[in-house]
Amino acid sequence: MESVRIFELSKEYLEDLRESIKQEDSGFILRSMEEAKKADIAAILDELNMEEALYVLRSLPPGFSADILIELDEDSQYKVIKAMEPRELATLIDHMDSDDAVDILNQLLIKDREEVIGYLERKEKSLHIIELLRYDEDSAGGLMAKEFIKANHNWSVVQTIEEIRRQAENVDKIYSIYVVDDKEKLLGRVALKKIILASANTKIGDLYEGSIISVPTYMDGEEVAEIMRRYDLEAVPVVNVKNKLVGRITVDDILDLLREQAEEDIQAMTGLSDDVEETDSVYRLSRARLPWLIIGMIGGLLGAGFIGFFEEGLSTVTALAFFIPLITATGGNVGIQSSTLVVQSLATKSVFKDSLPKRFVKVLIVAVLNGIVLAVFVWVTVVLLYGHPLEFGIVVAIALFSVVLLASFMGTLTPIVLEKLGINPAMASGPFITTANDLLGLGVYFTVATLLLNI
Amino acid sequence: MESVRIFELSKEYLEDLRESIKQEDSGFILRSMEEAKKADIAAILDELNMEEALYVLRSLPPGFSADILIELDEDSQYKVIKAMEPRELATLIDHMDSDDAVDILNQLLIKDREEVIGYLERKEKSLHIIELLRYDEDSAGGLMAKEFIKANHNWSVVQTIEEIRRQAENVDKIYSIYVVDDKEKLLGRVALKKIILASANTKIGDLYEGSIISVPTYMDGEEVAEIMRRYDLEAVPVVNVKNKLVGRITVDDILDLLREQAEEDIQAMTGLSDDVEETDSVYRLSRARLPWLIIGMIGGLLGAGFIGFFEEGLSTVTALAFFIPLITATGGNVGIQSSTLVVQSLATKSVFKDSLPKRFVKVLIVAVLNGIVLAVFVWVTVVLLYGHPLEFGIVVAIALFSVVLLASFMGTLTPIVLEKLGINPAMASGPFITTANDLLGLGVYFTVATLLLNI
Repeated sequence: MESVRIFELSKEYLEDLRESIKQEDSGFILRSMEEAKKADIAAILDELNMEEALYVLRSLPPGFSADILIELDEDSQYKVIKAMEPRELATLIDHMDSDDAVDILNQLLIKDREEVIGYLERKEKSLHIIELLRYDEDSAGGLMAKEFIKANHNWSVVQTIEEIRRQAENVDKIYSIYVVDDKEKLLGRVALKKIILASANTKIGDLYEGSIISVPTYMDGEEVAEIMRRYDLEAVPVVNVKNKLVGRITVDDILDLLREQAEEDIQAMTGLSDDVEETDSVYRLSRARLPWLIIGMIGGLLGAGFIGFFEEGLSTVTALAFFIPLITATGGNVGIQSSTLVVQSLATKSVFKDSLPKRFVKVLIVAVLNGIVLAVFVWVTVVLLYGHPLEFGIVVAIALFSVVLLASFMGTLTPIVLEKLGINPAMASGPFITTANDLLGLGVYFTVATLLLNI
Repeated sequence: MESVRIFELSKEYLEDLRESIKQEDSGFILRSMEEAKKADIAAILDELNMEEALYVLRSLPPGFSADILIELDEDSQYKVIKAMEPRELATLIDHMDSDDAVDILNQLLIKDREEVIGYLERKEKSLHIIELLRYDEDSAGGLMAKEFIKANHNWSVVQTIEEIRRQAENVDKIYSIYVVDDKEKLLGRVALKKIILASANTKIGDLYEGSIISVPTYMDGEEVAEIMRRYDLEAVPVVNVKNKLVGRITVDDILDLLREQAEEDIQAMTGLSDDVEETDSVYRLSRARLPWLIIGMIGGLLGAGFIGFFEEGLSTVTALAFFIPLITATGGNVGIQSSTLVVQSLATKSVFKDSLPKRFVKVLIVAVLNGIVLAVFVWVTVVLLYGHPLEFGIVVAIALFSVVLLASFMGTLTPIVLEKLGINPAMASGPFITTANDLLGLGVYFTVATLLLNI
């Protein structure tokens, strides 16, 4: 045992592996991977092409291959699944937890999906899978697995241990036993620790903790994650509308969910239109970046057309052009700050949140305060340091002040509206809004200039 | 039992609670909070002032108050700790896990800290705490707790169950038993499930799983989180340099860590200089926003001074001003896209990452591709749609192309340099870099214009 063995995950091993695949040396594959963690093997298979990955998966015992298949990255996983025969895929799915099985099946066409399910060995498992396929992928129902231990409140500790023994192979991680009544309604849970320490004849009904947290099948995954974080849960039972225990969500799936979400938010904020990584192909990287760059550029071109309207004024007071970047940049910065605050506040559903009008009044006060500081600062610099006329300094200062106010409102309002429309509100900190803010800033700037400088 | 009871967390309850505090009705407090979750009570105390919160904590049994104190938000927690007598605080710390105790003690002056430790009831606990205080807060050592169950490999299952019984009160969550040799070196672990199913006389040495993952005390918390996510762990043992088992990190602390980190990254990206929330005071909100706004504005003012150098050229070709926002915005967008990709890639430590020169060649190719698309697009619009002279269109197109290239490099290089300097690389997607990119873009634009238009 060493600390954090990332095992033979090296370029040298990758080459050896490729060579052994070429020579169809499945013995080497078996021997070298035997002791490795499934996530590490998956990371290696992600580097192989589809045929090579498939060869490795076929060389390993199905239970092991099933674990690896689950851990593959999206692209590799999809390719491998598509290439497998339905019967072969069914053998792997027989070895998976129901939630992982559903994630795999969700990638197939309905026709292929049904064929694979038809080949499953155990009737109970296929019923579980068919049930889980009904739920939305991002809901508690879509996240839960059917593998968990439940005990009737009338059972004794011995009976419960018998049930654990019966299910030991199916249920990998047992944290607690969920206790149900005769109608399968969730009553509470017993920690595994308590089962060990209780005497054999104690009734489960006398042992369980009743005041526990459960989530309904329709709850959004993000909300489930926040509940598990808040209440320090390693697993949470899922109930249907009748409070019947139907599944369990474990924290490992929540860690994956949180990571995916963080990535989605970052994408939304930075204008990458596809989930790309530095190691992706040049073509994919270019394609993911172009859409938002082009949208940003259309914004810039609109801005150019807009400034064009003020060509006359600009040729009279050339100095107006100097402060265009100042105005657009400040608008952008204020807008992003505002939208981020709202996005964060949307993510934490507190009861003690202020009402919408109260929040806007606050936004207004903060914007006025900051606007005044910035306006004074800019006026002093423009007039005293750069030696522009006093009047011109006032134009820049007023424009800046107005931009701070408007960008604050835009930044506050946009994520709220996006959330209502069912769009990821993090989008409001992205290039679309920056562009909109640029245009807004230019509009304010030139309007103020036209009004005050009589140009 | 209901689904997700956020109990009486309402404004009405808050008022009742305030009233009961005023009337020193600790009976109401006890009754109404008895069944509630500690995280929910903490959320309510966060709404109270320090004296009120302190009154509530003193009305509840110390074990319960200890749990609530841990869950308070940073500000409230600090205020309450400061207001408590050392002996009183020690009573609460007696009821905490060692990692939580250390988080609390870390907020005190060394002198006060030692006084509190002196009042602790159990000698073993104070030794544990003194040990944990040595570690950096964000390292595995700083995250771990001393509460876990370990068994000697020579023990039988019965002996191990006896140890679980002995420690049952101290160790709240038991997922597995860690197995050590006579020198306390970590050998492996036994899942609790296996203990239940094994016969009483089986030796632990025959039961344990040897190939498990552990982390060293000095490992960065972020890395621990990634390991726990990758290998689906609900807890991970921590070892010292001699592979001696010294602690355990549980996933609930990792969920909190991940949330804090996500918030820090967002702050770095949006230029909020302090961890603020929408519900904070106007003063705090303004103060958190101003520093970066002012820095951004200084950038804008520098830009203004810079454009001023080209005043003559601008007054000859006013149209140059039209495209300033296009150039700066595109530079900003490209820069943020590039830096985000690098930040993400820095966060996932893959062995199969390309070498630095190879990565830069890739950045160059992507930038050239995107630059060409954008340049052609802008040339067509500027010349054919806006009717500017052919030559002028070439100036804008070349400037844009150069900005895409330069911003790509800046965006790629900056996070790598920041990481090397020990600064959060997410900073590279923030206002500082946007501002730098603006200046860069302006420089390129006017240089190209001066060279090609002979102004």
